[in-house]
Amino acid sequence: MTKWVYRFPGDDPADKMLLGGKGANLAEMARAGLPVPPGFTLTTAACHAYRQAGGRLTDEMLEQVSAAIAWLERETGKGFGDPANPLLVSVRSGAPISMPGMMDTVLNLGLNEDTVEGLARRTDNARFAYDCYRRFIQMFGDVVLGIPHYLFEQALDKVKQRRGVTEDQQLTAEDLQDVIQQYLRIVEREVGRAFPRQPREQLEMAIGAVFRSWDNQRAVVYRRIHRIPDDLGTAVNVQSMVFGNMGDDSGTGVAFTRNPSTGEPVVFGEYLTNAQGEDVVAGIRTPQPIARLAEEMPAIYEQFLRVCQQLEQHYRDAQDIEFTIERGRLYLLQTRSAKRTAQAALRIAVDMVNEGLITRHEAVQRVEPEALDQLLHPRIDPDAPVTELARGLPASPGAASGRIVFDADTAQQRAQAGESVILVRTETTPEDIHGIVAARGILTSRGGMTSHAAVVARGMGKPCVCGCDALEIFEKDGRCRIGETWLQEGDVISIDGATGRVLLGEVPQIEPELSEDLERLLAWADEIRTLGVRANADNPEDAAKARAFGAGGIGLCRTEHMFMDPVRVPIVQRMILAATPDERAAALEELLPMQRGDFYGILKAMDGLPVTIRLLDPPLHEFLPNLEDLVAREAALRVRLEYEADRADLRAELRQVETLLAKVRRLHELNPMLGHRGCRLGITFPEVYEMQVRAIYEAAAQLVREGYHPQPEVMIPLVGHVEELRRMRALVERVHAEVQATTGVEVPLSVGTMIEIPRAAVTADEIAECAEFFSFGTNDLTQTTFGFSRDDAEGKFLHVYVEDKVLPENPFATLDQTGVGRLMAWAIREGRRVRPELKLGICGEHGGDKRSIHFCHELGLTYVSCSPYRVPLARLAAAQAALGGRA
Amino acid sequence: MTKWVYRFPGDDPADKMLLGGKGANLAEMARAGLPVPPGFTLTTAACHAYRQAGGRLTDEMLEQVSAAIAWLERETGKGFGDPANPLLVSVRSGAPISMPGMMDTVLNLGLNEDTVEGLARRTDNARFAYDCYRRFIQMFGDVVLGIPHYLFEQALDKVKQRRGVTEDQQLTAEDLQDVIQQYLRIVEREVGRAFPRQPREQLEMAIGAVFRSWDNQRAVVYRRIHRIPDDLGTAVNVQSMVFGNMGDDSGTGVAFTRNPSTGEPVVFGEYLTNAQGEDVVAGIRTPQPIARLAEEMPAIYEQFLRVCQQLEQHYRDAQDIEFTIERGRLYLLQTRSAKRTAQAALRIAVDMVNEGLITRHEAVQRVEPEALDQLLHPRIDPDAPVTELARGLPASPGAASGRIVFDADTAQQRAQAGESVILVRTETTPEDIHGIVAARGILTSRGGMTSHAAVVARGMGKPCVCGCDALEIFEKDGRCRIGETWLQEGDVISIDGATGRVLLGEVPQIEPELSEDLERLLAWADEIRTLGVRANADNPEDAAKARAFGAGGIGLCRTEHMFMDPVRVPIVQRMILAATPDERAAALEELLPMQRGDFYGILKAMDGLPVTIRLLDPPLHEFLPNLEDLVAREAALRVRLEYEADRADLRAELRQVETLLAKVRRLHELNPMLGHRGCRLGITFPEVYEMQVRAIYEAAAQLVREGYHPQPEVMIPLVGHVEELRRMRALVERVHAEVQATTGVEVPLSVGTMIEIPRAAVTADEIAECAEFFSFGTNDLTQTTFGFSRDDAEGKFLHVYVEDKVLPENPFATLDQTGVGRLMAWAIREGRRVRPELKLGICGEHGGDKRSIHFCHELGLTYVSCSPYRVPLARLAAAQAALGGRA
Repeated sequence: MTKWVYRFPGDDPADKMLLGGKGANLAEMARAGLPVPPGFTLTTAACHAYRQAGGRLTDEMLEQVSAAIAWLERETGKGFGDPANPLLVSVRSGAPISMPGMMDTVLNLGLNEDTVEGLARRTDNARFAYDCYRRFIQMFGDVVLGIPHYLFEQALDKVKQRRGVTEDQQLTAEDLQDVIQQYLRIVEREVGRAFPRQPREQLEMAIGAVFRSWDNQRAVVYRRIHRIPDDLGTAVNVQSMVFGNMGDDSGTGVAFTRNPSTGEPVVFGEYLTNAQGEDVVAGIRTPQPIARLAEEMPAIYEQFLRVCQQLEQHYRDAQDIEFTIERGRLYLLQTRSAKRTAQAALRIAVDMVNEGLITRHEAVQRVEPEALDQLLHPRIDPDAPVTELARGLPASPGAASGRIVFDADTAQQRAQAGESVILVRTETTPEDIHGIVAARGILTSRGGMTSHAAVVARGMGKPCVCGCDALEIFEKDGRCRIGETWLQEGDVISIDGATGRVLLGEVPQIEPELSEDLERLLAWADEIRTLGVRANADNPEDAAKARAFGAGGIGLCRTEHMFMDPVRVPIVQRMILAATPDERAAALEELLPMQRGDFYGILKAMDGLPVTIRLLDPPLHEFLPNLEDLVAREAALRVRLEYEADRADLRAELRQVETLLAKVRRLHELNPMLGHRGCRLGITFPEVYEMQVRAIYEAAAQLVREGYHPQPEVMIPLVGHVEELRRMRALVERVHAEVQATTGVEVPLSVGTMIEIPRAAVTADEIAECAEFFSFGTNDLTQTTFGFSRDDAEGKFLHVYVEDKVLPENPFATLDQTGVGRLMAWAIREGRRVRPELKLGICGEHGGDKRSIHFCHELGLTYVSCSPYRVPLARLAAAQAALGGRA
Repeated sequence: MTKWVYRFPGDDPADKMLLGGKGANLAEMARAGLPVPPGFTLTTAACHAYRQAGGRLTDEMLEQVSAAIAWLERETGKGFGDPANPLLVSVRSGAPISMPGMMDTVLNLGLNEDTVEGLARRTDNARFAYDCYRRFIQMFGDVVLGIPHYLFEQALDKVKQRRGVTEDQQLTAEDLQDVIQQYLRIVEREVGRAFPRQPREQLEMAIGAVFRSWDNQRAVVYRRIHRIPDDLGTAVNVQSMVFGNMGDDSGTGVAFTRNPSTGEPVVFGEYLTNAQGEDVVAGIRTPQPIARLAEEMPAIYEQFLRVCQQLEQHYRDAQDIEFTIERGRLYLLQTRSAKRTAQAALRIAVDMVNEGLITRHEAVQRVEPEALDQLLHPRIDPDAPVTELARGLPASPGAASGRIVFDADTAQQRAQAGESVILVRTETTPEDIHGIVAARGILTSRGGMTSHAAVVARGMGKPCVCGCDALEIFEKDGRCRIGETWLQEGDVISIDGATGRVLLGEVPQIEPELSEDLERLLAWADEIRTLGVRANADNPEDAAKARAFGAGGIGLCRTEHMFMDPVRVPIVQRMILAATPDERAAALEELLPMQRGDFYGILKAMDGLPVTIRLLDPPLHEFLPNLEDLVAREAALRVRLEYEADRADLRAELRQVETLLAKVRRLHELNPMLGHRGCRLGITFPEVYEMQVRAIYEAAAQLVREGYHPQPEVMIPLVGHVEELRRMRALVERVHAEVQATTGVEVPLSVGTMIEIPRAAVTADEIAECAEFFSFGTNDLTQTTFGFSRDDAEGKFLHVYVEDKVLPENPFATLDQTGVGRLMAWAIREGRRVRPELKLGICGEHGGDKRSIHFCHELGLTYVSCSPYRVPLARLAAAQAALGGRA
């Protein structure tokens, strides 16, 4: 005889293919001794048999169902169809693979005009009993008898109209009896027979309906989309219903096994005596904290604590529980992994390792890396009262307060005068760098998550809110409007880069810290991960911060920010605009000691760890005055001279502007992203790179003499052809040898390149011959592989692409594995083929993105490099990737 | 006994490995009965034996050399060391693989103080004889005895000083005797023994020296670089010398077997009686045309004509010959394939097929495809006198004369008034298109071979000279300076786009024609080639021209040029700047019939052939006024209002400019190349593409009704992700169905995409699912794969890259096989895997480049597409590729 029916609690193994997901889970909980309402499962095999029998429950099945019902009556002490103490059951589908919402459910099965009275008596709540019955008829009518919804709804609406009420809640027990009578009439009219009053008949019909629902249109389509085989079939779960409104020894509530906000290992939750779930939700009565249960029902409370512990033991995680107490008996209606804050996740994971409940590996997998971002930036104190002016995009996390300034120069002046400032601009450009450096935070009205402001701010770990539509700037008037509020330069605002909020005035903040729990978790992560984590840092402070956050080196030290220093800009401009080689040499001579100082500080801060220094990358015109400004100045001066022809001063100024404009125009580019930058500068102006390389090795030599162990790695940007790298490598080797000869000090030599141009990726075999390391510059590689200019795409079409799902996600945020990733895989395969010991890293923003880190792990990279603030996130994500989880 | 010495003429097969390249060639010519001076070759095996014997000629070798010399004396009727009639020989190296200039040569061997007198008598030219002797001592001293060059040169200089002359030519016979005495003393002093006077000793020493030269430093390095095995060894060729200055029955000359300029099958050349080669070169006497030989030496002339025929029979190509007649005997000193003009190459190839000398396949391989470019554009009449003002880059071939204009609007106005104009600008931008269309030719002072002007002009087949440094434009003054000449708007100049010449005034031109010879050759090419050839054409005239030149369809019809039509620009601007969807729809409604007319004309011109129409590609701001101009206008108006605050008209104008500026700014992009263009426009403004697709199918439907067979192929530009193509394809299919439903006419549907973004190439497997064809847009693909903006790279660094050999060549001119080519190969492999019948084409400028066409053939493309004028070139190059030759 085939076993078609499995009871829970029972002794059979929980076979998901046979019992379906829900059935197996109920069996598992019951077998673990957890108090779930008892019931039984008709197997997926029964589903096949039902369909093969032409949509009929076989006699064998019916016999087994009868036996199970009899057992259930014994288990619950209730009788199926017994008006004195009616057993009610739910009938639910449950396939081996979850198909949420696709198939049907019937609740409160077993009610009829007799048992409903029994339910009313037992719960002392006639309204509740009639409402249950009404719902049952409606559900059964819909699911089992195929009567259109709206017929029942119309009937209900009519009664409400008649009673002059609008809400179901306002109907009385008598009203509901009226509804029931009408529902029964609808059934009789629609199906030509009376509503089945026998619970056994109801049950058989409901089971058949659930089996049939496997083949309903929605389910078939769902399976096709999700590639679920049609022949799996569904199981049917029949479970006894329990009620928390059966007197003062009953109740219902929700609880967490640990505090979901702090992680404190104390049961946390609330309950209502003599109530059902709906009452808790409706908020008519105020629930009690769970601790009160110790006084009201001490035994139940004790049991509840045990159950919580048991649940954690069984599921090995903090649980979010719905429970009901029916006449002094505790039942779990649902348990699932508890949602929690970042802080709680951290504490729970670490505590559970200490409690021996989970392993370190599991603990590492329990914390969402992105959540760490919340913990590692200053935050707006959540308890402080705030005035929200507007919201923009949460472009770079952290909170900042300061005085509004509208331009970079003012930002710098006020900051130097000791003020905190927020730089408020339409959008930022590389020329605003000194203002961004000086400001506490950045607010822009245009540009997206990958706009210049956002990228630079994230790189600096500085709060930024971008694309705040409600912000309108009237720079010339020195004021702006944010939403309805007019503000002037010098007024104080706060921004919250984690949420995009713009707030009025100063707001109290909470400073970030690497808590003991986090340090411990990250130490475990470090034991697990195989992927290195470095940081992108351009100055000693950031380097030190990165080291404190656990970075194993600097993956990207950009030298152009050093050129942006306001003291240096004039020298840099002199270098760029030099009319003769001698003039250029003189300017470079001035820059050399400054750069040497920069490198000295960074290499010292990262003593003993590798520091990858990228030689100058951006086009030179980024260091020059803006072309449009000069055009406007020239035009204005010309007109002014029309009116004041004798002004020699204006004439002189015009000549100056014209000269400068001519030079800027000569350097101007139509597509600077694809223009004269990176190693193309190194090839055409080798003296600039030579100065930088000299500064690096002289700084390193000095450190060696002082007893340090600097590990500079020189990185050549924007290589597309091996010959570029070959020549730049020769330059580096020559200067390295010269510095060693002059100083008599040995400094390690390591030269590599960015892979940020598709051609570099596809000719990686050639390039690897000249490179000790590759660093995937995935920001630029994404731009060139997609043919997207990040500056333009965001505002013009990329948001549409992401919203309309033309692209699955923003490729500047999460690495595009299908396109960019294939090029990376090619480069890695070919590069390692030629040079097996090749070091491979990534230094684009993707280095701080969880899913991208997983992909980098799979690609077999040596390390990822990201902003200092994201180093902990990366350490954790790398460990999770090593544990093989899915990102 | 090993045979170490092979004589020529002789009967042995010409084995290159044994006799070396030169030896085998001499043997071959001699065996063919051609009159080469007799001689013999010591084999490469002898070289090995020499080295193994410790640098010694074995007795066996010496015996064989003696026998060969005796034979040679008989052959020539001269005696080795015989003062009465001395036999002189040359001794040269000759390895199996040519190593030009790497090894040594000794001429005039056999001279000493006795034989030199004999030579003087026989030639009746003592000065010549002594000069030969002097040179022989010097060469022998250097090559065989290892005496430093400069010692001989110093001695020669001293004699010249003493005689008060500066040129060797000015030394008399007596002077040279003096030099000889000094040379002999140098030898004695340096090597400690007298110069060897016995010819036999001279010969043995020279042979040994040539064998040793195989191991000299230069040769070893050369072999290493060119990967030539060290153990090949060299042969030594000993050949009797002949002299054309032995009297009136002697002479020397050069000749071509056919006219190298016209190809006419008549021997062409010149000679001098009683002279040697140097006399011809020195130009002291005027040579006679070869025909005169028929009178002066009729027998020799007859023999010469026979020899020419024999040479062509043997080498199966027109030859360039050096010959000498010594005492009534004709000798060939050198013969090689004759250099020839394009026209000659064509005629010779076709004639030789008709003469049965070569096959059609060979004829097709004989003509250089690039040469056709000369034939297919108007040319400056080479016989016309011209005044050259300057030279720029030969950016687009063809000649044009016209009046100078400095801006596109004027160009258009004057052209409409019936004038021929040359557009003269610093550089051109897309906004100048209407001016380029209107002008006969373009001249720019900046930008390279791939600048905007160059690319557009080549695409239109319009002459263009770019980057003419000597041109300075003073647009505001309406004049320019070219070199030293000042010219005004309206002055006439001519440009020669094939050479880069800029000429003063109007210059007579020769119009191009597809000659009968060319038509025949191309017909043969068409029989051979497997690669299709299409043309890039945007209007019916170009389409018709392309068809006349043999194009099998249009590979790229750009629709943006249609938008640039001056009548349409205002409508296009209204469409772009539309404030509401209705406004945009109205503008598109106006454009629809115009576009329909465009497509009607092109599809009709190409009736029955496929026409690939690319939907709108460039960023919309290209159709709007220039941003900088607006900035300047705004600045100027603001200042003007400061002085004239009450001018309401200025205030109104300012408001207008501000509004326009704001809109242009909104559309402005930092990197337009990577911005909002191509299908990104189609996704965000589907109504524009919809209008274009409707215009295409309505035009096609009309043609079908009229009995034509239009074959439109709709091409979606700039696809990077399959989803872009999927959506655009759906749009095309929808509109196609609508037009079919409305018109009731069936029109073929074909949708494909450009592959011009690296991501499209690496995800070709996905993209092929939605595309019937791929067209490689290698212009943009080169830009994105290299990360080069073509507009910026040319002027800023690419010329340096090409000059300094950082890149082997300009990748915009010749396809970069290592980088871009790998991406193409990937896309082709993956695309064909998914869709085996996928059509594959290329529509970048590389489609007209010979080497790139070879590569496309190897990649297995279906067709290349190029400018109409390059279609013949492409047909020929495709045939050559099919014949497996190297490009």
